[in-house]
Amino acid sequence: MSNTPEQVETCVVVVGVGLIGGSVAAALKSVNSTCHVIGFGRNAARLEEARKLGLLDACATHPGELPLTDRTLVVVCLPVEHIAASVRELAAMSGPQTVITDAGSVKRMICSAIRDDASAVKRFVGAHPIAGGENAGFENSSPELFQDRCCIVTPEVAAAENVDRVSAFWRSIGCRVQFMGADQHDGVVALTSHLPHLMAVATTLVQSAETMPFTGTGFRDSTRIAAGDARLWTQILLGNRPRVLQALSNTRQQLDDLFMLIERADAPELQKLLQAAVSVQRHQKLN
Amino acid sequence: MSNTPEQVETCVVVVGVGLIGGSVAAALKSVNSTCHVIGFGRNAARLEEARKLGLLDACATHPGELPLTDRTLVVVCLPVEHIAASVRELAAMSGPQTVITDAGSVKRMICSAIRDDASAVKRFVGAHPIAGGENAGFENSSPELFQDRCCIVTPEVAAAENVDRVSAFWRSIGCRVQFMGADQHDGVVALTSHLPHLMAVATTLVQSAETMPFTGTGFRDSTRIAAGDARLWTQILLGNRPRVLQALSNTRQQLDDLFMLIERADAPELQKLLQAAVSVQRHQKLN
Repeated sequence: MSNTPEQVETCVVVVGVGLIGGSVAAALKSVNSTCHVIGFGRNAARLEEARKLGLLDACATHPGELPLTDRTLVVVCLPVEHIAASVRELAAMSGPQTVITDAGSVKRMICSAIRDDASAVKRFVGAHPIAGGENAGFENSSPELFQDRCCIVTPEVAAAENVDRVSAFWRSIGCRVQFMGADQHDGVVALTSHLPHLMAVATTLVQSAETMPFTGTGFRDSTRIAAGDARLWTQILLGNRPRVLQALSNTRQQLDDLFMLIERADAPELQKLLQAAVSVQRHQKLN
Repeated sequence: MSNTPEQVETCVVVVGVGLIGGSVAAALKSVNSTCHVIGFGRNAARLEEARKLGLLDACATHPGELPLTDRTLVVVCLPVEHIAASVRELAAMSGPQTVITDAGSVKRMICSAIRDDASAVKRFVGAHPIAGGENAGFENSSPELFQDRCCIVTPEVAAAENVDRVSAFWRSIGCRVQFMGADQHDGVVALTSHLPHLMAVATTLVQSAETMPFTGTGFRDSTRIAAGDARLWTQILLGNRPRVLQALSNTRQQLDDLFMLIERADAPELQKLLQAAVSVQRHQKLN
């Protein structure tokens, strides 16, 4: 599914050059070396470091410096609580050939915050590439971060050609694109991403100086996501509150069932539950 | 910390040649090719396959075939519920130069079950190498499985020279040996191993056909342990019941705290809890 020449972006603005923004830039540079990649952020010195690393062609700290009236694609890779404001600000200055997408891991909050802004609604197509890592900063970015990763695109009232263009963009840096409504997206990630984070945090917090030296690879792998940036995760969890709470409630019910079966020493029923989890895990492997 | 010549084993019996037993055999062969490794189990055909793979020098299905009156080291790598019976049976046939260890991931249950057996008490030194994987069978074994892994040795009333010899054995295949009482061991692994398994199971069980296609590497890593053999894990969890229940209770309290802070949208306190988990994870990395 290669993109047509009209779908190859010639100028991309990356707003927020951290792990995700840096990886978007790196991936773009590796698949499309003629694309002009502009990093946009508050910290000129940090942007300049990213430019020196070869991730960016140019840096900007004021929106007036951005070529938003040309044919530009903007990817907002900020923490979720800052995405909507950035989209609104940049959309207000954008011409009809500019399209804006994002990489935020919650979508309802963002879509709702731009719903009453006519220019933002026209220019914006939300997206969430399911990729990341617990080590923040563009120093940890990789051109391979999005390779074969699913990117959920959540078109709300966006124009079809903008949806096509944004989808082609995410595909061009390696993603498999899937469409979903913002609400459905948030329900899915509450279970697949936000819940595992909370479970890893809880498992980590009950450890002590006595237990930590005796953790093996199982513990390490199952809880490493708890090392993710606490400020970013606070905003993600609060940005998807009702669905995160629902996911936590369901999981507490499962833990209560497991507790009860262990308390009763009910080997056959406990084994059945564990086996059900094995089956789901095997099914995942086949995907 | 290399072993003295007297500590180099010349004959090792591996009881139960699965992932762990197969990896013990493979590691032995790689560090000490002159050691005679005998696989002992019920299934002659499976043992013969392991022999053909080069893991074993000989196979036996009846204890009478084992050189237990010579200077032999026996490693019992059976599922936890079968370890004590195997130790008792083999100890009864063993001479004074034979020593028996195991690789069981619970220890109080095993130590209690042999406490009133004079010959087993004399011959046995319990151990738990903290290594493994969710793919069972000697086909998945690796000579590197124990490399730099912690092995907890739990001497109860064992003779000092047997404790030394068993420790030297685990060290010889790559482990860092640490002593601990059986009760302390079980308390530690309830938190570091049995709890993460249950958390991964619960997280897996609340997923659905709708959510599974959208899981990323975070989900995969944090829940893959839930693919571990359901029958083995049932026995491990029930073999460490009081401590597993205690670990689950503590963790439910943490989840309740997280739930409450998200419900109240208390960003500062939520961030504090997430940050505490980040600190523990960072500390682990430094180990």
